[in-house]
Amino acid sequence: MARTTGSDGGRTQAAIRDAALSLIARHGYEAVSMRQLAAEVGVQAAALYRYFPTKEDLLYTLMQDHMNGLIAAWEGARPATVDPTARLAAYVENHIAFHIERRSSTHVSNMELRSLAPERLTHILKLRTAYEKELRTILRDGAEKGVFAVDDIGLTAMALIQMMTGVIVWYRPGERLSIDGVTETYLSMTMRLVGAPQPAGEQRHVHAHA
Amino acid sequence: MARTTGSDGGRTQAAIRDAALSLIARHGYEAVSMRQLAAEVGVQAAALYRYFPTKEDLLYTLMQDHMNGLIAAWEGARPATVDPTARLAAYVENHIAFHIERRSSTHVSNMELRSLAPERLTHILKLRTAYEKELRTILRDGAEKGVFAVDDIGLTAMALIQMMTGVIVWYRPGERLSIDGVTETYLSMTMRLVGAPQPAGEQRHVHAHA
Repeated sequence: MARTTGSDGGRTQAAIRDAALSLIARHGYEAVSMRQLAAEVGVQAAALYRYFPTKEDLLYTLMQDHMNGLIAAWEGARPATVDPTARLAAYVENHIAFHIERRSSTHVSNMELRSLAPERLTHILKLRTAYEKELRTILRDGAEKGVFAVDDIGLTAMALIQMMTGVIVWYRPGERLSIDGVTETYLSMTMRLVGAPQPAGEQRHVHAHA
Repeated sequence: MARTTGSDGGRTQAAIRDAALSLIARHGYEAVSMRQLAAEVGVQAAALYRYFPTKEDLLYTLMQDHMNGLIAAWEGARPATVDPTARLAAYVENHIAFHIERRSSTHVSNMELRSLAPERLTHILKLRTAYEKELRTILRDGAEKGVFAVDDIGLTAMALIQMMTGVIVWYRPGERLSIDGVTETYLSMTMRLVGAPQPAGEQRHVHAHA
């Protein structure tokens, strides 16, 4: 693609990450070589190795970026209220908004865990657990307050996360549905699934879709 | 592993398929060679090529087996009743039972579609669409009869399928929950999600778990 100058290290690194996400999502981690990646970015392989001494260093960086970005996004989106329904709505909206814009990154993060070294895998899984714990806390608070009817907090959290992340498998921007429309439908399904009272719309933060 | 004699072609083919599913699920399609697979099964590479002339022939066979097996399982499980709630319950039970016993096959089927030749990919996607259409029909019948409250049939079907298939990501047999327990919780979440009246248990076909 466009040749990226080595003078701006940050820009080169970002270009490497973007190209790596796209190549790995399309062909799989094992099938992508550092040489192929360097060619895609338009740098010498030596420049690549300066930033990422091994291919696994690169994969680990991509997965850390993804999880740290997700956690930071949630920290920015988390509402101050204690109301479980509003917190759950915010979690769903943030989760869908984050993943729908990061298809490649989400694919890589979900599909290539097997290629991480054990201690790095443990670190990524710890980040995931921390993020998922936020949802379990919301569900538990809602169940304890009698706002939600949840049989099993852990199973419900997993079911919701897989249902929401699954959006990236079939959603293509510019199709029949807007992102807001998809989010609204998923919010409504989530609220029904956890047995929350169906609101008239006051808890929705999404905009009406055309 | 155990050496499989060439005299029983059916047994050898089955051993190749099993080993291929396990190796591909663990390492990814691109990373597994026909030579490695032959060694795992305990046959000469030539024997492998007799059954599967190319690695992609093998992958295609695995994916066809998976989808044809799923469709056959559903045809066996589909109840004669027109009641949408009972049909939805049967769909959920069959889907979870089928996938929970086929972790490797499910991983391969979901993760390696990109490695199929275009016309084969089209065929596999057609089988998927046919299977998913069964769920959409149940949801539509339920919505039209006023038994279900579903905003968007297509989105609800995708959400349910991804939620249910996601079980294989975290479920390990012999853990805290039995398969029946998991199925019961997912049935209850599904019925709430589609806005079905929560039954006292008469629509459940699962057995109580200890």
